Amino acid sequence: MPDNRGVAYVEPGKVEVRSIDFPSFELRDGPGVHPANVGRKLPHAAIVKCVTTNICGSDQHMVRGRTTAPEGLILGHEITGEVIEVGPDVEFVQVGDLCSVPFNIACGRCRRCKTGDTGVCLNVNPDRPGSAYGYVDMGGWVGGQAEYAVVPYADWNLLRFPDREQALEKILDLTMLSDIFPTGYHGAVTAGVTSGSTVYVAGAGPVGLAAAHSAQLLGAAVVIVGDLIPERLAQARSFGCETIDVSAGDPKDQIEQILGVPEVDAAIDAVGFEARGHGGDAGHEAPATVLNSIMDVTRAAGKLGIPGLYVTGDPGAVDDAAKEGSLSIRIGLGWAKSHSFATGQCPVMRYHHGLMQMILNDRAQIASAVNATVIGLDDASRGYGDFDRGAACKYVIDPHGMVGR
Amino acid sequence: MPDNRGVAYVEPGKVEVRSIDFPSFELRDGPGVHPANVGRKLPHAAIVKCVTTNICGSDQHMVRGRTTAPEGLILGHEITGEVIEVGPDVEFVQVGDLCSVPFNIACGRCRRCKTGDTGVCLNVNPDRPGSAYGYVDMGGWVGGQAEYAVVPYADWNLLRFPDREQALEKILDLTMLSDIFPTGYHGAVTAGVTSGSTVYVAGAGPVGLAAAHSAQLLGAAVVIVGDLIPERLAQARSFGCETIDVSAGDPKDQIEQILGVPEVDAAIDAVGFEARGHGGDAGHEAPATVLNSIMDVTRAAGKLGIPGLYVTGDPGAVDDAAKEGSLSIRIGLGWAKSHSFATGQCPVMRYHHGLMQMILNDRAQIASAVNATVIGLDDASRGYGDFDRGAACKYVIDPHGMVGR
Amino acid sequence: MPDNRGVAYVEPGKVEVRSIDFPSFELRDGPGVHPANVGRKLPHAAIVKCVTTNICGSDQHMVRGRTTAPEGLILGHEITGEVIEVGPDVEFVQVGDLCSVPFNIACGRCRRCKTGDTGVCLNVNPDRPGSAYGYVDMGGWVGGQAEYAVVPYADWNLLRFPDREQALEKILDLTMLSDIFPTGYHGAVTAGVTSGSTVYVAGAGPVGLAAAHSAQLLGAAVVIVGDLIPERLAQARSFGCETIDVSAGDPKDQIEQILGVPEVDAAIDAVGFEARGHGGDAGHEAPATVLNSIMDVTRAAGKLGIPGLYVTGDPGAVDDAAKEGSLSIRIGLGWAKSHSFATGQCPVMRYHHGLMQMILNDRAQIASAVNATVIGLDDASRGYGDFDRGAACKYVIDPHGMVGR
Amino acid sequence: MPDNRGVAYVEPGKVEVRSIDFPSFELRDGPGVHPANVGRKLPHAAIVKCVTTNICGSDQHMVRGRTTAPEGLILGHEITGEVIEVGPDVEFVQVGDLCSVPFNIACGRCRRCKTGDTGVCLNVNPDRPGSAYGYVDMGGWVGGQAEYAVVPYADWNLLRFPDREQALEKILDLTMLSDIFPTGYHGAVTAGVTSGSTVYVAGAGPVGLAAAHSAQLLGAAVVIVGDLIPERLAQARSFGCETIDVSAGDPKDQIEQILGVPEVDAAIDAVGFEARGHGGDAGHEAPATVLNSIMDVTRAAGKLGIPGLYVTGDPGAVDDAAKEGSLSIRIGLGWAKSHSFATGQCPVMRYHHGLMQMILNDRAQIASAVNATVIGLDDASRGYGDFDRGAACKYVIDPHGMVGR
Repeated sequence: MPDNRGVAYVEPGKVEVRSIDFPSFELRDGPGVHPANVGRKLPHAAIVKCVTTNICGSDQHMVRGRTTAPEGLILGHEITGEVIEVGPDVEFVQVGDLCSVPFNIACGRCRRCKTGDTGVCLNVNPDRPGSAYGYVDMGGWVGGQAEYAVVPYADWNLLRFPDREQALEKILDLTMLSDIFPTGYHGAVTAGVTSGSTVYVAGAGPVGLAAAHSAQLLGAAVVIVGDLIPERLAQARSFGCETIDVSAGDPKDQIEQILGVPEVDAAIDAVGFEARGHGGDAGHEAPATVLNSIMDVTRAAGKLGIPGLYVTGDPGAVDDAAKEGSLSIRIGLGWAKSHSFATGQCPVMRYHHGLMQMILNDRAQIASAVNATVIGLDDASRGYGDFDRGAACKYVIDPHGMVGR
Repeated sequence: MPDNRGVAYVEPGKVEVRSIDFPSFELRDGPGVHPANVGRKLPHAAIVKCVTTNICGSDQHMVRGRTTAPEGLILGHEITGEVIEVGPDVEFVQVGDLCSVPFNIACGRCRRCKTGDTGVCLNVNPDRPGSAYGYVDMGGWVGGQAEYAVVPYADWNLLRFPDREQALEKILDLTMLSDIFPTGYHGAVTAGVTSGSTVYVAGAGPVGLAAAHSAQLLGAAVVIVGDLIPERLAQARSFGCETIDVSAGDPKDQIEQILGVPEVDAAIDAVGFEARGHGGDAGHEAPATVLNSIMDVTRAAGKLGIPGLYVTGDPGAVDDAAKEGSLSIRIGLGWAKSHSFATGQCPVMRYHHGLMQMILNDRAQIASAVNATVIGLDDASRGYGDFDRGAACKYVIDPHGMVGR
Repeated sequence: MPDNRGVAYVEPGKVEVRSIDFPSFELRDGPGVHPANVGRKLPHAAIVKCVTTNICGSDQHMVRGRTTAPEGLILGHEITGEVIEVGPDVEFVQVGDLCSVPFNIACGRCRRCKTGDTGVCLNVNPDRPGSAYGYVDMGGWVGGQAEYAVVPYADWNLLRFPDREQALEKILDLTMLSDIFPTGYHGAVTAGVTSGSTVYVAGAGPVGLAAAHSAQLLGAAVVIVGDLIPERLAQARSFGCETIDVSAGDPKDQIEQILGVPEVDAAIDAVGFEARGHGGDAGHEAPATVLNSIMDVTRAAGKLGIPGLYVTGDPGAVDDAAKEGSLSIRIGLGWAKSHSFATGQCPVMRYHHGLMQMILNDRAQIASAVNATVIGLDDASRGYGDFDRGAACKYVIDPHGMVGR
Repeated sequence: MPDNRGVAYVEPGKVEVRSIDFPSFELRDGPGVHPANVGRKLPHAAIVKCVTTNICGSDQHMVRGRTTAPEGLILGHEITGEVIEVGPDVEFVQVGDLCSVPFNIACGRCRRCKTGDTGVCLNVNPDRPGSAYGYVDMGGWVGGQAEYAVVPYADWNLLRFPDREQALEKILDLTMLSDIFPTGYHGAVTAGVTSGSTVYVAGAGPVGLAAAHSAQLLGAAVVIVGDLIPERLAQARSFGCETIDVSAGDPKDQIEQILGVPEVDAAIDAVGFEARGHGGDAGHEAPATVLNSIMDVTRAAGKLGIPGLYVTGDPGAVDDAAKEGSLSIRIGLGWAKSHSFATGQCPVMRYHHGLMQMILNDRAQIASAVNATVIGLDDASRGYGDFDRGAACKYVIDPHGMVGR
C-alpha cells in the first residue's frame, strides 16, 4: 500500500502537510468524523490518485478560524483524480478512468438525489442534508488536498473524461469542474442569466470570476464585476468583463455609467457572509452588504443567484445575530421589486457534464478566467496564505507532479 | 352622468363613504395622485359599474396608519364590474361585459407586461414599477371601493366572464379573482406546491386561506395552516386543512405531530411584515418571525412563496431598521437548506383565466374557503373595523345591491 | 427456497401459469433474455414477494401476437411487492419493506437516470435505451406476473410505503403506482394540463382513465374522454368526466357541444398504434387516427401528451409503412397550430412519490377511477381475455391471496 | 403623401416591383385581403419607412407556386423601419424611432398574446390563429418588401433600438431580428440546446445558419449542419460549424465520424416540407425525410425543434396525402426514444429584445453567419431567383439606399 499525505488544518491561520492513512473502503474515525459515520462501509467507493486538487474560498472560512473545524481535519473538496481501485459494488467506473469528483457527496439513492438536488443528499451527513469532502460539520468525509482520496458512491458521483490524453492537456480547465465552474454557473443560471442579459457579479474571487465567465457562456450581453481588490478586477477585465471598484462609490451609480441605466437584469452574490462594506464603509465586515446591494441594482422581477456562502453559525461574527446567521436584510426592497432569491450549495452533477463538453470543445476558458496557478502539495500553506491576502488567482495543487508548471 | 360614492381613508382607524367624481377617460388630480399622472389621457380605458369590490388585508396597512396615505385617498383594488362605457381605443371589451379587474394596473405594452410580469409594469407608476388602484405611492389611480371606477388599458387588463347569468350566480367566487385567489395561488405555485406536496401556510387571513385552498387545488397531500386566532383556524379546518396555533408552541413540533416529520415540502408566508411572535412571544410584533419560521419548517431544497407584504418604508415599525424595511433574517439557515424565495405582488393575469374556469366548472370553492361575507357600501367602515379585529371572513362590498345577501 | 409460478406467453391469444425459477441475484438465460444480459450479476437487487401485479394494455400487444415475443416469456411489469431478500450492495431498502416497483428498470448511475429520464436508462437493455420487466426486446428481465420477482438496483428503483398496515388498506390504489397512474399523469403533465384546463383524453382504457383522473388532480376544469366502448365511457362518467362516443361522429363536433367551442387546451393520446377509426370508419384499425384527431381538437399553442404506445416494428400492421412504425400524420396541421408533442415511456420515478402521498392522504382515487378488479394468479388467462374484449376494468393479480376480494 | 412601391407576386417564378398605396390607418381591400379584415381601423398602428426588408425562404413557397397566393399580393414580412407617423392610440412609440417589426402580427390583447404566444394571436387573422405581413391566407396584411409599411398594434409589436446611430451601424445584424434570428434561436431553444450540447441542424439556408449560430450562443459544444449545397456548407463552416453533405450518405454515419457517437443531444429541422431525399435519394422531393432523419440521429429523451415550415395544404405536393399536409412519419421511432417535438411559427417577441442586446454588445454575429447581402428594391426579382437557386446568402433589400453596399 502506498503512503498518503494531506493538508491538515492546524489552528487559525495555519495548515500543514501531514502523513495520513491511505484511503480504504471504510470511513474510519478521525478529526471531525461524525460518530454515526465511523465504520461506515464503502463497497460502492473508488479510490483515486489526486491528479489535481484546488484550494477553495470556502476552505478559508475554516483556516481563518471562523468555524469549529477541529485540529487535524484534512482539507480539500475540489478533486480530480485517476481511479486506482474500485469497491465490489462499482459496476461502471473502471480503474484507469480519469474523473472529476463533485464536491458534494451524494448517495444517488435518496429522494433529493433523484431530483438532482445532490447538494442536499439525505444519506451522507448524519447532522443534516448535504455533505462535502474535508469540511467541518459535514459528516467527516476525509478531504482531498492529498495524494489519494476515497470517493463513495463512485458510479453515481464520478464524471469520467472520455479521453485520457485530451483530459491531461486540458486539466487546468477540467479541474474547475469539481466545484467553482459549476458553482459560478449555478449562480448565473439561478439568477436567470440568458441571451442578452445584463449581469452584475458581486465579488471577483474565483467563484465570482467563474460566475462572470458562466454568464458570458449563457449569453449575457454585458457582465459587470464588482470587488475591492484592483488585481482581481484586472483579472475580470482580462476576459471581457466590465468592472466596478465598490470602495469607490455606490455600485448603482457605477452601473449606470456603464449601462446607461442604474440596474441590471440579473445579479449574483459571489461573496457571502464575510462581505465587507461598500463606499465609505469599505473594509469593515458588513455581512449583509452584498445581498442588500444586489437587490438595489437588480431590476424588478429579476432574480438573485446566491452561491456565496452564508452559514448558520459564525463564532467570529460582528454581532450576536450574525453569530447565528441572522443578517439585517432589506427584504422590503426585494419584495417591492418582486425579486426571487436562490441560495445553497451548487448541485454539481446538474452541470458538470455539459461544462466538460464545452471545455473539451474549446467553448469555455475557465482556467484562464480564474487564473489557475499550479503549486505542489508542499506549497499548500503558502497558497492558503497568498489566497487569503487576495491573490488574483485560483491555486491548483498538483500532488504528484503530473501537471506541467 | 350618474353620481358616484367611494370609501375614503380619513385618518388612522377611520374610513368613510364620500361623494366622489364619476370616472372619466382622464386621470384627474386628487389625494395621492402623482403629479406626473395628473391629466393622463385614458382612451384605452373602460368605465365599470362595480358589482362587487372587496376589502383587502393590504388596505388595512393604510387604515392602521402604517403608511403615508393622504387623507381622502379612495380605497379599493379588488373590483369586479360591468362595463358601461369604453374609450375610443378599446377594441375587444364591450359595454355590458361582466369582468374581473386585476388589482395590478398594467399597460400591456412594456417589457415586463410582455413577459407576464404585470405586477411590475413600467408605465403606470411614475415612482417605480408596479401599481394598483386606491393604494398609497402607486401613482394615484382612484380606488374601486365605490359605485363606479375606471380601468385603464381595458382590452389588456379585463377578464370577461363568458356568461352573465352564470357569473352572477357565482359572483362571490368570481369576485376573488381580482386579487386574493390569484395571490394565494401564486404563493402556492412559487412555493413549488404540486401533486403530493406537504404544505405549511403561515397565516389564516383571507390570503392564507386562499393559499391553502390553492395548495389543495394544486394537489397538496396535506395542507397545514398556522395562525393565532381560533376562529380563523376553524375556518381553515372547515375545508379540510390541518391547523396549528402558533401561540401554543413551536410550529416545527406541531408539524411533526401532524406529519410524523418536522418539516414540509413547501411553505407560504401569507402574513408579511405585521407578523406577531410565536410561542412565548405571541402577540408582540416581530416582523421577521414568519419568514424565519417557514425556513425552519421547510425541507432542504424547498421553496418559500412569500405573497405576504413586506414594505420599503414603515413609519410605525418596531425599530429603525424595520422602518426602512430591513429585517433580521436567518439567511444562514435558508442557505444551508438550499432554499429559494419568491416575493412580490402576484401578477394576477397569469392565473385569473384558469382559476375562473375552475370556478365556473365547480372545481374551486374559494368563496366558501375564505368565508365571503357581503356588506353594503355604507357598511364599509364597520367591515374595516371587524376585519381589523380578526373576523374570520372576507368582506365583499356590494355597492349596488346586485348580490343577494 | 420457495417455488415460483408466473404467467407465460404461449402463442397469440394464449397465456398460461407455469412453474418458473425462483428469482436470484443473477439474470439467468431464458425466453427473450438478451445474450449480453445472460449471467449479469445483481448484487444491487432485491427479491420481492409480489403482493399485487397488474395486467397492462401494453401486455396485450404481445398476447395478441403483434410483437416478436418468444414462447415462454414471463409477462408482467406492474409489480408491488414485499422485500424478502436483498443483495450485498443494497444499503437502504430493508427486508419487510412494502414497495412499489416502477415498470422502467433503471440503473441510477447513467446520464439519463441522473436527469430523471429513467424510461431510457442506458445500462439495462443491450439493444437500446430503456427497459421493463417481462417485455419483448427489452433485455430479457423476467416478468412479475408471478409469485416472486427480482428488482435490480433496488435502492434506486423501489418506492417504500411508509406504513405497512396503511399500505395494505390502500393496496388497490397503490398498485397503480408501478405504471398506469404515473403514465396517465405523465400524459396529462406533458399535455400541459394545469388549473382550469379543458382536456380531451382519447381512449377510456385504464391508461386513459388514469390520465383523465390525473387531469382532474392537476386542476382541469373539464375532462372529456372519448372511446368506442359504452362500458368504458360509463366508467369515465362515474368519476365526473364528460364523454364522447367516437363512433358517433367527429370528436370536434361533440367537443363543441360540451364546451361551446370546438377545441380543448390540452389533449392526451391514451390509445397508441392499435387505434381504430372514428365516425364512419369506426372499427377498422387506423393507426394514426388518434394522433390526427387530437391535433384537430387542440387549440393553437397547445400540447399533446402521447403516453399511448407507438412501436418501431409491428408485424401485424395494416400496411408496409406501419410495419416499420411509419404513420401518415397531419404534421402540417400541428405545425400551423404551433403544437408540441411529447412521446415515450413515462419515467415513473419522477411522479410516484407525490402520487403515493396523494393516495395515502385520500386526495386521489385511482383504483376507483380505473375500476380495479382483483383476480388470482390462476385467473390471469381469463383476465387477459376479458380485458382484450374491452372489459371496463383494470385487472389486479393477487398471487398470494393477500388482498381481500 | 409620398409614393410607395412594393414587390408583388405575379405568377410562379415571377415577382415585380409595382407602385402601391401608401400605408394608412385602415386595412383596405387588395389582393389576398380577407373580407372580414377589409376596412379594419388601425388607430393603434405606426407607419414605418422600411430601412431594410429581407427575402425569406418562406416567401419562396409562394413564389414557386406552391400556395394559393393571388396575383398582386405584396410580399415581405421581415421589416426594420423608422416610424414616420403614429395612430391616435399609440402611446409609447414615437416618430423617429428605429424599430424591428416582428413578422408575426399580434394584437397584444388576447389570451395567446398574454402568454407570449404571439405566433398564434387570435385577433388578427379571421381564418385561424396567427398572421404575418405579405403572406397568403394570413388575413391580408400588406407585405413590407416596400418603401413604406403599416404596423398594427405598434406599442405592442415594435422593438425600439435604443440608439439610432449605433443601430444604423449594425443594421445588417439588427435586420435579422424580424424573423430568422429569433426563428433559428427558437428552433435551438425548443430543441433543448444548452451549455455543452451536441447539435444537428438539418438545412444550411438562412434559418439553418441562424439556428446553428443560435446553438453556439446557447453554449453548444459542437454544431453540425447538414445540407446538399456545397456553398451553403462552406458558409456554415465559416463560423465554426462542422458540416455533413447529406447527399454523400447517411447523416448518422457522418455524425459518428465527427463525434465518435452516432447521435446528438438535440436536433433542428430548418428545412420543412420541401425537403429532398438523402443519400441515394438525394434530389427528389421527400417531404418527411428531414423529420425522420433528425429522429434517427437524436439521442433518447432528446428534443426536436422544428422551425422548418410544414403546411396544411400544398397543391404541388408529391402525393395526395402530402397535398393535405399528411406525411409518413416514423413516430414509432420517436416514441421509442421518448422524443418531444416542437413545431410552429416562432413567437419573435419572446426573443428579440435579448438577441438585440447581444448584437448591440458584439456578442452575436448573425449577419456574418447568414452572409447578409444588400440589394436594392429593384433587384428583388434577381434576389428571389438567386436565392431559389441556392445562393449561400441572405438577401436584405434596402429600399431607400440607407445601407452602405
